[in-house]
Amino acid sequence: MGEFDLIARYFTRPARADGAVALGVGDDCALLAPRPGMQLAISSDMLVEGRHFFADVDPLTLGHKALAVNLSDLAASGARPLAFTLALALPRVHEPWLQRFSEGLLRLADAHCCELIGGDTTQGPLNICITVFGEVPAGQALLRSGARAGDDIWVSGTLGDARLALEALQGRIGLPAGTLARARTRLETPTPRVALGQALRGIATSALDLSDGLLGDLGHILRASGVGAEIDADETSKLIAARALFTGATARLDMELLRQCTLAGGDDYELAFTAPPALREAVAGAAATAGTPVARIGRISAEPGLRLADAQGRPLAGRYASFDHFGG
Amino acid sequence: MGEFDLIARYFTRPARADGAVALGVGDDCALLAPRPGMQLAISSDMLVEGRHFFADVDPLTLGHKALAVNLSDLAASGARPLAFTLALALPRVHEPWLQRFSEGLLRLADAHCCELIGGDTTQGPLNICITVFGEVPAGQALLRSGARAGDDIWVSGTLGDARLALEALQGRIGLPAGTLARARTRLETPTPRVALGQALRGIATSALDLSDGLLGDLGHILRASGVGAEIDADETSKLIAARALFTGATARLDMELLRQCTLAGGDDYELAFTAPPALREAVAGAAATAGTPVARIGRISAEPGLRLADAQGRPLAGRYASFDHFGG
Repeated sequence: MGEFDLIARYFTRPARADGAVALGVGDDCALLAPRPGMQLAISSDMLVEGRHFFADVDPLTLGHKALAVNLSDLAASGARPLAFTLALALPRVHEPWLQRFSEGLLRLADAHCCELIGGDTTQGPLNICITVFGEVPAGQALLRSGARAGDDIWVSGTLGDARLALEALQGRIGLPAGTLARARTRLETPTPRVALGQALRGIATSALDLSDGLLGDLGHILRASGVGAEIDADETSKLIAARALFTGATARLDMELLRQCTLAGGDDYELAFTAPPALREAVAGAAATAGTPVARIGRISAEPGLRLADAQGRPLAGRYASFDHFGG
Repeated sequence: MGEFDLIARYFTRPARADGAVALGVGDDCALLAPRPGMQLAISSDMLVEGRHFFADVDPLTLGHKALAVNLSDLAASGARPLAFTLALALPRVHEPWLQRFSEGLLRLADAHCCELIGGDTTQGPLNICITVFGEVPAGQALLRSGARAGDDIWVSGTLGDARLALEALQGRIGLPAGTLARARTRLETPTPRVALGQALRGIATSALDLSDGLLGDLGHILRASGVGAEIDADETSKLIAARALFTGATARLDMELLRQCTLAGGDDYELAFTAPPALREAVAGAAATAGTPVARIGRISAEPGLRLADAQGRPLAGRYASFDHFGG
């Protein structure tokens, strides 16, 4: 199968009647026509075999995840998804793989009315690079730089389950089959918090999405905003869905794993955001509108740095380093 | 060096005072603010080691080429470059390599006022994925679908030199050192015809950029426009800069190589476009404005298919297949 047949068969669909996409797949460039008063939010993520996914991953979930991690960036900016490009390097053309990959990819795209408008295919070590486009009213994008002392720190959904699955899949821990299956769903098919991000416009003072681990990612907000933070590690540790595991005889060891997973696990694709305490009801309203639970885990302070404490307010000395793609 | 230091050191620069880029590198998304009445032209290309460039290529020229092939797509649409994202997979962080790569990349970006606004870096087999953004007045983009019977077929600059260099570098032919050096420049640092593309708005009825070889790429215009073409193979063969080589005792063999290179060589990054004969002076004016030579090589016909003839009008039976990344 030639390169162009491949694009036509798996990645080209009739253009939808959406004013924002003026021209889709098939020419030298795609054309987007943003509505007046809108800015275009743009993000690009590259997924590499062995680093971001296992070689034997189901291509259906891989297609989902490749787009989900990009939609998560739009969510963190409060943008509404419009379209995306897909650049794909494949070792060989394997049609059943492409069929499932495109199915997972386009199913999530359809759920968010996000149209595939172009890209590239080539032969090479498996590499998936998606660039996503969303629109946001001018001046209303959620940035990392707006956190202020006194703001609450919130996170959406659950944290740490993806990392728990990774630890189990790599044989470092054992998990009951049902728990692993649920955690693995979080690792392989994360849910980008697109509705929540848009609902938080005008409420959140800052936001970002959690890809490399809560503490490391929060550090980006702190640096960009010139502030510090106090985090309740035990409140945060409640956010792991598989929490029921962490009881019984090995509770002390498990507590450490639980903190690692929730504070620095990575691959969560939840939103972390800040908002003034006066807007707690507004935050709750946005969460209800979006159908996404949120939890308060700490507070922004004027003093630089990030301070962790347990439920009794005792400082935690442990360092919960964030995942870094070059080992930092 | 951590992932984030790498971005900061080599790929982050102060934002320019250009209204189109509202937010550059450093947040979850970049923000573009297209001017009223403008559409955004978008293209994405992925370059893989061993397929698009040699492992030992000078990273300075690789940085140039990675952006040039994308700017060439904007040129083919008649769009003015605004910005780009860079996703980069690297086997390891090698600072001298990154220094030269970013120098070649950003030098070309500066020459076109095209700002690096975001992207991604990760560890993996060397892979460079750039997505580029340009603006074009709504409804004025050059498309592949506008060619009409009777239109002239034009190409810019020279054809075939990049392929000639490739043949020599891979040891299949010998070239004098000076000729190889000049041809290699076309292979490694192609010139995107950005000014010409914009100058052709309102004149050209269709356009595309030549990446896979003239005949194969022209086929995209023919299919999109529902037309055919007559091409003067000898007129086309004059467009190779190294033409002086093709004389003397081996002229017959060389003529075949010359045709292969100019008709199906690939990696030219010139524009092919169509325009009515009544606009020949306008085409010449656009070429003069852009400082880019253009040549007429044939004519669009109503009859489907692409017919090649030599200068005496004799049909050429030879098949000049276009390069296909999956071998078609």
